[in-house]
Amino acid sequence: MDSYVAEIKAVILSICPDVQIVDISHEVRKFDIRMGAFLLMRASKFFPKGTIHVAVVDPGVGTGRRPIIVECERSIYVGPDNGILMPSAQREGIKHIYTIENPRYMLGEISRTFHGRDIFGPAAAHLARGIPPSDFGPEIFDPVIPDFAKPKILGDSIEGEIIHVDGFGNLITNITPEELRVIGAREGEKLTVRLGGRDFDLKLCAAYGDVEPNMPLTLVGSCGLLEISVNQGDASKLFGIRSGERIAVRRRIG
Amino acid sequence: MDSYVAEIKAVILSICPDVQIVDISHEVRKFDIRMGAFLLMRASKFFPKGTIHVAVVDPGVGTGRRPIIVECERSIYVGPDNGILMPSAQREGIKHIYTIENPRYMLGEISRTFHGRDIFGPAAAHLARGIPPSDFGPEIFDPVIPDFAKPKILGDSIEGEIIHVDGFGNLITNITPEELRVIGAREGEKLTVRLGGRDFDLKLCAAYGDVEPNMPLTLVGSCGLLEISVNQGDASKLFGIRSGERIAVRRRIG
Amino acid sequence: MDSYVAEIKAVILSICPDVQIVDISHEVRKFDIRMGAFLLMRASKFFPKGTIHVAVVDPGVGTGRRPIIVECERSIYVGPDNGILMPSAQREGIKHIYTIENPRYMLGEISRTFHGRDIFGPAAAHLARGIPPSDFGPEIFDPVIPDFAKPKILGDSIEGEIIHVDGFGNLITNITPEELRVIGAREGEKLTVRLGGRDFDLKLCAAYGDVEPNMPLTLVGSCGLLEISVNQGDASKLFGIRSGERIAVRRRIG
Repeated sequence: MDSYVAEIKAVILSICPDVQIVDISHEVRKFDIRMGAFLLMRASKFFPKGTIHVAVVDPGVGTGRRPIIVECERSIYVGPDNGILMPSAQREGIKHIYTIENPRYMLGEISRTFHGRDIFGPAAAHLARGIPPSDFGPEIFDPVIPDFAKPKILGDSIEGEIIHVDGFGNLITNITPEELRVIGAREGEKLTVRLGGRDFDLKLCAAYGDVEPNMPLTLVGSCGLLEISVNQGDASKLFGIRSGERIAVRRRIG
Repeated sequence: MDSYVAEIKAVILSICPDVQIVDISHEVRKFDIRMGAFLLMRASKFFPKGTIHVAVVDPGVGTGRRPIIVECERSIYVGPDNGILMPSAQREGIKHIYTIENPRYMLGEISRTFHGRDIFGPAAAHLARGIPPSDFGPEIFDPVIPDFAKPKILGDSIEGEIIHVDGFGNLITNITPEELRVIGAREGEKLTVRLGGRDFDLKLCAAYGDVEPNMPLTLVGSCGLLEISVNQGDASKLFGIRSGERIAVRRRIG
Repeated sequence: MDSYVAEIKAVILSICPDVQIVDISHEVRKFDIRMGAFLLMRASKFFPKGTIHVAVVDPGVGTGRRPIIVECERSIYVGPDNGILMPSAQREGIKHIYTIENPRYMLGEISRTFHGRDIFGPAAAHLARGIPPSDFGPEIFDPVIPDFAKPKILGDSIEGEIIHVDGFGNLITNITPEELRVIGAREGEKLTVRLGGRDFDLKLCAAYGDVEPNMPLTLVGSCGLLEISVNQGDASKLFGIRSGERIAVRRRIG
């Protein structure tokens, strides 16, 4: 709808004309740092070594929160110091974190409302030109680490959370195959899934098409997390469940 | 909303860094193979010779449906063997069809839910690098041919279907200028259009602006198909009609 | 949703394969020339010198309105002669305006419904190849100049208009810092803002985070215009106000 993304790209191309820009998503729910961090983490691991990632979900723009560059093993991350970059950066291995303070690498005039265009985009473009991360500002050692809930295992049950509802309506949880292994869940068998206060017995499948069209199922999806889905349908609508709600999963008894 | 498209692009650029990627649409109605086939057919004929098209509307992902490469006169098409590629490929002229079986040209780990990223994207990137289509798997001769309804001429009437409602609300039919010629329809004259059980007399125009603002009309649109439109308005809302509904068209009598 | 944008890009890349294309917006409200002109003006100033801008909000497509090329100091603008290009072009400084008449630089077959693909895209691509603007058609001196309302100062009050509601719900007005200076408004002080027939006392801030989350404020936004916002919220929803509505602003008395 807006020209904001184009303005960032225009600034980047003005500084580094031959860079290749790929959009990850511009539809992160407003101010939802966790959703931004999740999508960045999903996508970033498929990009080539040397990619510079810019992520701007930035409710604190213009206040005291620091703009940072996180130099990792394979990639460099640029964005606000509010946790959005950390899940991706920690998975890769963080080498150094620098604040962005050098005005030489910012737009001439800095607004207090749009650092994507005025600070983060220019920083990414200068990094793409080969400026070393350490030129942008002093190293820091106290980045904001987000406290995203991890699932808990209580007896034979995993208690987790719906962390994302994708465009198909799939309910993506924070539950990994490791937790499923601990409770002894096996592909092809049924799980009892508690959602919205009710229990459902759903097969742990390998593909959506393993059940009939319009039937619900669970599977470990393409990002390596347990999801609740409906074959050719919309699980979010069927179950009336949204991002942030709780889920409990256990092997079906009997 | 999701990072799915970015993941496909990231994989492509990891394999073939200097390829140019153009998005056709990421808003095909979920699981609607016909709408995907329609948009691909509209767009593909304007792309340069040698373009590799990837189309993934893929309700059968992870089941037995085959991933295929369709080598045509001007282009190469990559996607699931469910009919989505066929209207474009048949119009161009099909040379060979191969299944994608060679794991060398797939992502290291293949999910059963996201072949766009794990199989189709990598195949397109390897094709762009110059790998010949025949290297991906054996030739096949029995692709799924979609059975999209064609309009019928019954006496002085053409019976067709709304195959797409575009973002402006234009109702795009499967009726071509050839059928209009058969019933003797002429630009500037009125047609009687039956929509939702009611008859409307609408002028067959050449441009939207040939009628007053907010007035309905018919014309042969930019994809060479009859459409029902409203000048500067939304025909889908005005008539309360959606994709898939039936339409009948005849010359106005008297 | 549609393949229209892809068709324009495909035509451009067929003519000039190594051009870099950046999307500004494809979600301008249908037929809203002012919104198109606003987004183009916001974004265009950040693009590199030599950029060719194509803007197609084109309710008059296929009628008598002229297709034009506006050659400016830094950029070239291509689009319909309906005013959409003028605010950007006038800000830069117009050198010459030409109509596009030479069929050599159009698509082989010209529809009367989609000049973005058939005329404007090809013209931009030929300009990118280095064809001089004067080759496309005769110079004109009477372009359509849009009559977008300017704010008025009445006593101690500025009367303006909401010209855009952005994706965050910020209400962007046509009021500039110059008008605010005339009435003596100062950052950190309160303004009385009349919206929808009611008065609100809102602080003139520098950043969204200068008030508590979910609290309303005013600030001069990243495009240099006064906007009414809610920190981490949606001002359009809070105030029930849409684009086109009137606004009055004065210093709070007492």
